[in-house]
Amino acid sequence: MNLDLDWLQAAAAAVDLEAREAAISRQGELTKPPGSLGRLEDIAIQLAALQGRAQPSLEQVQISVFAADHGVATAGVSAFPQAVTAQMIANMAAGGAAISVLARQIGAGIELINLGTVAPVAPHPLIRDATIAAGTANLVEGPAMSTEQLGLALAEGAAAAQRARAASADLFIAGEMGIGNTTAATAVTCALLGRSAADLVGPGTGLDRSGIERKRLLIDQALTRYQDQLRLNALPRMATDASREVSIARSREMATNALTQLGGFEITAMAGAYVACAQQRMPMLIDGFISSAAALAASRLCPGAADWMLLAHASAEPGHRAMVEAIGLRPLLDLGMRLGEGSGAAAAVPLLRLACALHAQMATFAEAGVAEKVSQG
Amino acid sequence: MNLDLDWLQAAAAAVDLEAREAAISRQGELTKPPGSLGRLEDIAIQLAALQGRAQPSLEQVQISVFAADHGVATAGVSAFPQAVTAQMIANMAAGGAAISVLARQIGAGIELINLGTVAPVAPHPLIRDATIAAGTANLVEGPAMSTEQLGLALAEGAAAAQRARAASADLFIAGEMGIGNTTAATAVTCALLGRSAADLVGPGTGLDRSGIERKRLLIDQALTRYQDQLRLNALPRMATDASREVSIARSREMATNALTQLGGFEITAMAGAYVACAQQRMPMLIDGFISSAAALAASRLCPGAADWMLLAHASAEPGHRAMVEAIGLRPLLDLGMRLGEGSGAAAAVPLLRLACALHAQMATFAEAGVAEKVSQG
Repeated sequence: MNLDLDWLQAAAAAVDLEAREAAISRQGELTKPPGSLGRLEDIAIQLAALQGRAQPSLEQVQISVFAADHGVATAGVSAFPQAVTAQMIANMAAGGAAISVLARQIGAGIELINLGTVAPVAPHPLIRDATIAAGTANLVEGPAMSTEQLGLALAEGAAAAQRARAASADLFIAGEMGIGNTTAATAVTCALLGRSAADLVGPGTGLDRSGIERKRLLIDQALTRYQDQLRLNALPRMATDASREVSIARSREMATNALTQLGGFEITAMAGAYVACAQQRMPMLIDGFISSAAALAASRLCPGAADWMLLAHASAEPGHRAMVEAIGLRPLLDLGMRLGEGSGAAAAVPLLRLACALHAQMATFAEAGVAEKVSQG
Repeated sequence: MNLDLDWLQAAAAAVDLEAREAAISRQGELTKPPGSLGRLEDIAIQLAALQGRAQPSLEQVQISVFAADHGVATAGVSAFPQAVTAQMIANMAAGGAAISVLARQIGAGIELINLGTVAPVAPHPLIRDATIAAGTANLVEGPAMSTEQLGLALAEGAAAAQRARAASADLFIAGEMGIGNTTAATAVTCALLGRSAADLVGPGTGLDRSGIERKRLLIDQALTRYQDQLRLNALPRMATDASREVSIARSREMATNALTQLGGFEITAMAGAYVACAQQRMPMLIDGFISSAAALAASRLCPGAADWMLLAHASAEPGHRAMVEAIGLRPLLDLGMRLGEGSGAAAAVPLLRLACALHAQMATFAEAGVAEKVSQG
């Protein structure tokens, strides 16, 4: 496995503006008032631009669930014990988790990538053992991972994107499992957006008020440590007219640093997968809070990556809105979901498919002999 | 066909509280943080209560699309010519309309009920000719329909609900088509909620600002005529401690009067269908603006009818929110749709099915050997 980070520097692919225009034009000819299918029209048009064809489709959907444990979990930042990460990987493999049920229902491929848990996970055909370590180090006390571990995690994500491409997937979904990972995702986001923990912290799997306050204090401690480390290793001051290349390089360094210091193996792998998808013309559907933190990191690692993303839903976790606004994404669903695993993304897949079917199969005004809109006045 | 309105007076069926409790209990045992599937949990619980089984399912979905023309359309309240109603019925039958595509994709049964159009509609196996008249009379100038026509339309709706029941449908969706019908739906809603047209009027299929203003003026004229007619035929004053029976009778009389004076054949038929569904234990998924006006009328015709309703989506038509808040419904989707035909309801069906599948197929904590939430503190 190539552990240098050179591959990260490849640009995101350009979307197909010609296919986009053709899709917009077709939407205007279908037998409905213009715009009356709302976001279902937008989805068809965006997928046309990403898939490079005027009539997109979503037959093959690939779900890669990235799992890992977090050193910070021992500090009591989750309502569930740390052993649940490994137990839930087994439950996903056995078909009993929410994402297992959803993948079956939507006919998606699913694989589980174990990047390292505290408790052992028994081998299973659906589980890819990609253990980096038995969870990250506690991000409050020091870097969550080493630079080498960062490279491993990013590369595991990119490998998943490549498998999806090899399987001719039309859409990639990353899911995750990791007790404590809303703490890491919040810390990474605070670092990238220059926010404090109080702005973004939330209950995760179900902390009560005192639990949320403990989580906030820990994240703020980690952010203080992170800021100290940034000052120690400060880049040379840039001129204010820094070139685009310099600005991209700084943004990339900031993101790799935030992931190393504050991230998780699964969050880092998801960021790597998203970058690779954008480089390889693979449309991706972003899930909730953890996924969006990884998507934010990916958009800093690779400018233009966000063009390849659709956002499935608004998470009930309060900090989610700030993340997705920073990336420039609008959620399709808002169902109060906060499970993770990729569940919100899987739940949105039927809507994307209906958008494609409407776009492809509706009659035009001319075909159906239906009169078009009259001019008003 | 029974043209008296006695059948309207049967009460809505009671929902199954035991099945509801069993479903709530099961949700608490599934391998996820409690509440983390958000509204997907609520859907499963509500469907359990309506279907009277702890594990609901939605295999058979029936869509009945009610179509009719509106006398008021000649006054220029739509962006489309009136001939489009008949043309779109043919397009739906031929499979080219949005609702045709959606019904195919979700595997729903579909039938088209023509209650009366200005232009002729050629016979087709999917089209039920239930012509009452070639559209309603212009509601600005006089009653939209006679009392006999009201009874016919309500009974056609009830008959559709009975066909859905006979076909063992698990869910009933009413859709509609009728150039000018946002004007009638707005007028009926204003009458039932005591609002003025300015509160609820909107662009419908795509009126510009001057078109919306013309529509508002016409609706206010119709409401003035309606109020004058109410005063002429005022019920005897009720004591303030009027019994529940008297209050229900007044509410029912008010709704039948609003439909007669201001409604449309398709809106009235949908209201009849919704009442019959509630009487016959048939869960229904309400679509957008027109459907919700009919649902509001149904909830006034039959107290408890709203217990049997789920609301698929928030319409982009601005007055929709006031309607659904008055009924007590919360939308599942908010995609900026404003097409009608039942399209928003059909688009929400996959989510309902996923909610049922998650509820039925996820493993419990005990089954999967996953540790439950730890107590905090």
